[in-house]
Amino acid sequence: MMLINGVSKNHIEITDRGFQYGDGLFETIEVRDGKAVCLERHLERLSLGCQRLYIPFPGKEILSFEASQLCTKQARAVLKIIVTRGSGGRGYRQPEVINTTRVLSLHPYPDYPETFQKQGVVTRFCDTRLGINPGLAGIKHLNRLEQILARAEWSEPEIQEGLMLDVNEYVIEGTMTNLFYIKNNKLYTSVLDQSGVAGIMRGIIITIAANSGVPVQEHRYYKDELLSADEVLVCNSIIGIWPVRQIATARFPVGLMTKNLQLQLDSFIKEALNNNEE
Amino acid sequence: MMLINGVSKNHIEITDRGFQYGDGLFETIEVRDGKAVCLERHLERLSLGCQRLYIPFPGKEILSFEASQLCTKQARAVLKIIVTRGSGGRGYRQPEVINTTRVLSLHPYPDYPETFQKQGVVTRFCDTRLGINPGLAGIKHLNRLEQILARAEWSEPEIQEGLMLDVNEYVIEGTMTNLFYIKNNKLYTSVLDQSGVAGIMRGIIITIAANSGVPVQEHRYYKDELLSADEVLVCNSIIGIWPVRQIATARFPVGLMTKNLQLQLDSFIKEALNNNEE
Repeated sequence: MMLINGVSKNHIEITDRGFQYGDGLFETIEVRDGKAVCLERHLERLSLGCQRLYIPFPGKEILSFEASQLCTKQARAVLKIIVTRGSGGRGYRQPEVINTTRVLSLHPYPDYPETFQKQGVVTRFCDTRLGINPGLAGIKHLNRLEQILARAEWSEPEIQEGLMLDVNEYVIEGTMTNLFYIKNNKLYTSVLDQSGVAGIMRGIIITIAANSGVPVQEHRYYKDELLSADEVLVCNSIIGIWPVRQIATARFPVGLMTKNLQLQLDSFIKEALNNNEE
Repeated sequence: MMLINGVSKNHIEITDRGFQYGDGLFETIEVRDGKAVCLERHLERLSLGCQRLYIPFPGKEILSFEASQLCTKQARAVLKIIVTRGSGGRGYRQPEVINTTRVLSLHPYPDYPETFQKQGVVTRFCDTRLGINPGLAGIKHLNRLEQILARAEWSEPEIQEGLMLDVNEYVIEGTMTNLFYIKNNKLYTSVLDQSGVAGIMRGIIITIAANSGVPVQEHRYYKDELLSADEVLVCNSIIGIWPVRQIATARFPVGLMTKNLQLQLDSFIKEALNNNEE
């Protein structure tokens, strides 16, 4: 199921700058019980991304309306929203009048086994490095070749995620997740002002940790620091939190703090769905 | 005029990874007297780009055939070739079977005034920095948000090009051109192993300069070095060589070496067209 500027179809003009240059943004959202989870937060990030790229934001009302059209009656699914700068002539210069393209599409919810949430996942370090680019850091734009090259590095089904460093060797995130570690009851994650995507779940985890009295620090750190952690976890809007039980050959326990964060995140999302505020 | 996998149409599946992630490559080629100029070199670069991104190269034969279908009878035009990883499910992981998408499209030749070639152009320095990314450096991939942000920085019609530095402040290239400078009869240009696109005209200019006894050096250099140059020029496959007569407030002459390179490049291209080897 797919809506392009409100119309049900499955193709796009070749001239769309999303296709020509990756000139746009996207959001990936869990659908549960007919509702897009934390939709308000996703649309807020999309709006900020549009500001950063000078793309006119299509508006929360129209996107919420179209999202609800697609999501109603879906027990569980994934909603993807793409916004591009629309069609334009050849060349990088943006058209004088920008008619954005918005694409909303539904996808099956991935059938990850429950053990990933409970017993954790196995990860590896990727060789592909994230480039340094303050102008694009943090936003979820359509230029995703770094993640594609990183994800192409392994095909072993027992490895669920690849962890990425930037060109300065700082640990940043997973190919499709944000990364946290716990050391001496404190929660750490990377600063995302040079590269990376500032995930919605990442933001919520920082908030609920701080609210429950867990000190949270965003900072720059190297591999060694991650490998000396007490607990490690990855997160995104589809998986929630997965404990990391292995990075390459290093093993980690599924610890109490990670389990607590999972419980609190579950409650947060259920409350958001009930209040319909998110 | 447009061919998508050999079929005349103007739209693409939403699921195409070119649209979803900028997962592909492109070439922009001058068409003159019914022929794509230096097509062989463009296809060679496209093939190398495909190798770098693990995209199966569609093959020189089919691309040449489709290019000639479009270009015949065109006195002057621009041919754009896009190759993407084709359609795939949600997620960065590439599909197990890759059916690439190839798009060939014709565009009007831009009506730049002849003065740009003869008296040179005015340029500026862009604030947007090129990220450092060895994995993507040199190839002409579809992740072009950096160029779009840089090109959005100015709208003055008297400025024809913006020059870009990388995040380490090295001078790299123009938004749509490669950049050379001349100092004491020697030709200099940037190393493109960390960022930038290794242009076809750039490669030809390096060859013809070296063949005519002009020393050529690819190296890393800062703004100050560029501003102390004797002559400056930008190049790409559509414009050939434009002398740079101004960078911000600094002025440069249209010097003898630049004029010589223009003449030699013209001969090179005419010969290539006649021999049909390129």
